[in-house]
Amino acid sequence: MTFLEKLDGIWKKNDSMVCVGLDPDLDKLPACLKSLEFPIFEFNRQIIDATSDLVCAYKPQAAYYAGQNADDQLKMTIAYIREKHPEIPVILDVKRGDIGSTAQMYAREAFERYQADAVTLNPYMGFDTLKPFLDHAESGVIILCRTSNPSSCELQELVCGGRTIFEHVAVLARDKWNYNKNVLLVIGATFPEELGRIRKLCPEMPFLVPGVGAQGGDVKKVIENGAAADGFGLVINSSRGIIYADGTENFAAASRKAALKLRATINESKS
Amino acid sequence: MTFLEKLDGIWKKNDSMVCVGLDPDLDKLPACLKSLEFPIFEFNRQIIDATSDLVCAYKPQAAYYAGQNADDQLKMTIAYIREKHPEIPVILDVKRGDIGSTAQMYAREAFERYQADAVTLNPYMGFDTLKPFLDHAESGVIILCRTSNPSSCELQELVCGGRTIFEHVAVLARDKWNYNKNVLLVIGATFPEELGRIRKLCPEMPFLVPGVGAQGGDVKKVIENGAAADGFGLVINSSRGIIYADGTENFAAASRKAALKLRATINESKS
Repeated sequence: MTFLEKLDGIWKKNDSMVCVGLDPDLDKLPACLKSLEFPIFEFNRQIIDATSDLVCAYKPQAAYYAGQNADDQLKMTIAYIREKHPEIPVILDVKRGDIGSTAQMYAREAFERYQADAVTLNPYMGFDTLKPFLDHAESGVIILCRTSNPSSCELQELVCGGRTIFEHVAVLARDKWNYNKNVLLVIGATFPEELGRIRKLCPEMPFLVPGVGAQGGDVKKVIENGAAADGFGLVINSSRGIIYADGTENFAAASRKAALKLRATINESKS
Repeated sequence: MTFLEKLDGIWKKNDSMVCVGLDPDLDKLPACLKSLEFPIFEFNRQIIDATSDLVCAYKPQAAYYAGQNADDQLKMTIAYIREKHPEIPVILDVKRGDIGSTAQMYAREAFERYQADAVTLNPYMGFDTLKPFLDHAESGVIILCRTSNPSSCELQELVCGGRTIFEHVAVLARDKWNYNKNVLLVIGATFPEELGRIRKLCPEMPFLVPGVGAQGGDVKKVIENGAAADGFGLVINSSRGIIYADGTENFAAASRKAALKLRATINESKS
């Protein structure tokens, strides 16, 4: 089954466009986990078990594992999801981008070493740096378009030939890069008007939408501007708002409550 | 000592702008190393010892270690350079780019976990994603500007307000991002004319120049267009041309010959 088929199935099965970002910072983990051999994995595992009927994807952010010398716990986390919840796709958030021979090695990292279903990529270097990933037809390739952070304006909003750079990315993604029908775009919830413009350019392409919760994106505006014709089409990520909903030993139950609430807010916005 | 001070010292001490890219592919290593416990480290170690008086930097490409489950050998390689050849800076080629809290974790990966002197970054997401690295005043921050690969034209050549996107990056780097005087730019040897344009915009900024050797960049044109007023100012990377100069047990001696030849070609082009 391809990533997009998996995503389409779980959107409907769980009636959810919620993606939980697994960005565990050791300094923020509940005290009860800190003495364990694999505290990050245990934190993730409990959150996964508490939310698996409420989400459409999990998105581990590679930096948290690389920066904390916890590559093994990233591998354990993805293996756990694939074993216990094989219907839920895993997006490895790496935002890689490099020349062809090097990109091949990054594709091995994402799809072989970590067994992710999809990966995020940076488009600045262009097609030949994306191709080693795009050629994995069964995998999702999620390309940065309009990112959620304030400084995304510096380059992404520059206008060339009547189109912003982020619109150029959307058009390249639609017309050139999507030959295996496995491309998605990243569009920040903090820019709902731009989200609407990109939805018009790419009516059927799924979007990964970070920036609700801690970053301030408005869910109702995201749905109004970004949902596809069938009411789905979005993977709406929340990391801190869900995984740190409660800093005590009740973190897993609290993450469930937060995921339930986000799903409800999304689904109410659809009607 | 800062990265740029270290670079300036070694340019002159070794009379060299050669950077050796440590991009070890297990499939291409000499047969004599393949049964070792740490074949990648041993390959790197012998190349480092054979070339340390001929180079201005080593540049391990993180993808080769991440894709081959060899993070430990990346760490061993950088530790070895820092111990045996502390005057030679290490550039960790990661091309990261992510929002602030995540970028902090990537900065920990590069500067704490791996102890690199400098790191490569992708500018697509803008200033706030670069800042966690720029704030490390002693470290080098090497930002993609005009990359060496063929598809770099797709976005980097788009023209906005009379300037290409890569020129916008150069101007942002010069005027906004360089508040700690630790910024460098990546400009591919395959685009010598563009290299000249960026040198005019940024007369004193050092450039990392990949793309000579296997990618076809012309050293003479690189020097003519890119050298700074003092004849230095460039970190000219060769990976495959040096590390795979010979596929047998003579690989280290061959890498020395190849580095000597590249240094001579560069230095002849200066006069």
